[in-house]
Amino acid sequence: MAQGTKTISSPVRIGICAPSTPFTREGADRVVALAAKNHPQAELIFNDQCFYEQGHFAGNDEQRLETFVTLANDPDIDAIWFARGGYGAARIAEAAIARLDSNAKRKTYLGYSDAGNLLGALYRGGIGDVAHGPMPSDIGRAGGEKAVQRALDWMVHNRADALEPGLISGQRYAAFNLMTLAMMTGTKLMPDLRDHILIVEEISEYLYAFDRAMFHLCSNLSGNGLTGIRLGRVSDIPENDRPFGEEPEAIAKRWSQLNGIAYLGRSEIGHDAQNRIVPFGIFKN
Amino acid sequence: MAQGTKTISSPVRIGICAPSTPFTREGADRVVALAAKNHPQAELIFNDQCFYEQGHFAGNDEQRLETFVTLANDPDIDAIWFARGGYGAARIAEAAIARLDSNAKRKTYLGYSDAGNLLGALYRGGIGDVAHGPMPSDIGRAGGEKAVQRALDWMVHNRADALEPGLISGQRYAAFNLMTLAMMTGTKLMPDLRDHILIVEEISEYLYAFDRAMFHLCSNLSGNGLTGIRLGRVSDIPENDRPFGEEPEAIAKRWSQLNGIAYLGRSEIGHDAQNRIVPFGIFKN
Repeated sequence: MAQGTKTISSPVRIGICAPSTPFTREGADRVVALAAKNHPQAELIFNDQCFYEQGHFAGNDEQRLETFVTLANDPDIDAIWFARGGYGAARIAEAAIARLDSNAKRKTYLGYSDAGNLLGALYRGGIGDVAHGPMPSDIGRAGGEKAVQRALDWMVHNRADALEPGLISGQRYAAFNLMTLAMMTGTKLMPDLRDHILIVEEISEYLYAFDRAMFHLCSNLSGNGLTGIRLGRVSDIPENDRPFGEEPEAIAKRWSQLNGIAYLGRSEIGHDAQNRIVPFGIFKN
Repeated sequence: MAQGTKTISSPVRIGICAPSTPFTREGADRVVALAAKNHPQAELIFNDQCFYEQGHFAGNDEQRLETFVTLANDPDIDAIWFARGGYGAARIAEAAIARLDSNAKRKTYLGYSDAGNLLGALYRGGIGDVAHGPMPSDIGRAGGEKAVQRALDWMVHNRADALEPGLISGQRYAAFNLMTLAMMTGTKLMPDLRDHILIVEEISEYLYAFDRAMFHLCSNLSGNGLTGIRLGRVSDIPENDRPFGEEPEAIAKRWSQLNGIAYLGRSEIGHDAQNRIVPFGIFKN
């Protein structure tokens, strides 16, 4: 089932699965080669499930669920890296969390976009160290090698320059794709964000849909003790038949303030190669 | 401000506003002409705000809010007909409801799509007779005259053949666009749907987004005493880079059943000329 590179000393064993949509073997080979060159301590274990294809998904729900649970409960694996977003993690996250054991609690989990469903559910369950940041699939972006190296810098060396630059010591954080989080509100995947700074980013949504998702999210978080919202990048906005008439930051400010939530400015996360890492929970530098 | 046709006896005065996106004067003229021909008892009062344009919206939030509230509180108007969907009603609905008076409670309200934000908020507030059904903008569809006539048949004559054919006497109903309702959950617009059959329809969403919205909606309604869900038409599904692998009805069944909600079959509503009317609340035939 597993393939990867072996390193000579004190390896950090990183299990890679795809809870949403499939990755490619070519992409995985590039990520493995990059890690071998610059992070020889990393042992990347791409589970074959990353390459399964069933309709929209990287294998059926059972295959994606089993693979994630097996890797998360493996005592010999240090970190779980989600291969790619898309859509699909919401279909397995609740069942997955229910099957995790004490080995899963000692791990780091890294991903973003649709993987936010698992990040949120893990964080809600107090399981492991959860972080929002680059995935193997970022290797396909222009400049994507930097994103992949940033993720490895953080998973292997805990390097501070991989982190979102505005994180404040002692403050609690969580970060999500906006639409992913909007669809988690009220479900068993949604973590308690009291006393957190929430960072959201968005991609490929019309501004009316961004506005609607901010309405939904801020309305749901109103009165829940959020410290504030920061806005990551809002990219690849499709052209509509007419301009929306308001920019993303103005939209985020308006819905935050209407719901008594502090708007705290921009943040260096997004669906791009510059996506910086945001560890969930209290930040300790 | 107002324009329309005058009828000779016992008029049903229908105030028309656009809480979301603009309608056209040409479309309004066609609707007025159609009503004059077949429903001379109807007096259609297209407020000029229907034709305002500000960015995405039919005028700014204040203009859309003021127009709706003024028409709803007008004692000489019998029904409010929402001109068109799009997006925008969520930005004014909560403020609007707070300003409605006893005149607003004696009215009928008809629309669908994004107007669902107002339908839901009105129904939550116990204000008026709320129904999901065709809007003036449907005149632009192939066969759209039939949709407009169906709406008038119901508003003017309460004709039974305008109604969704599967409604059961004594049963409670509500109907919405899926994405609109998904974004209302947990907000002050969301009505209590205990003991209701909920009918949802969808348009122009990828099947993965339909799946995600059903996950969100069914998770939020789980344990809330819903009688069941019926599925209207799911139309204009964009082509993705690969097939999703599951049809809309299978998706609706799966998320309903996973959340302990009865799936009760298909329904004759949708973003099309065949869209039948669903009055909210207990159905009396």
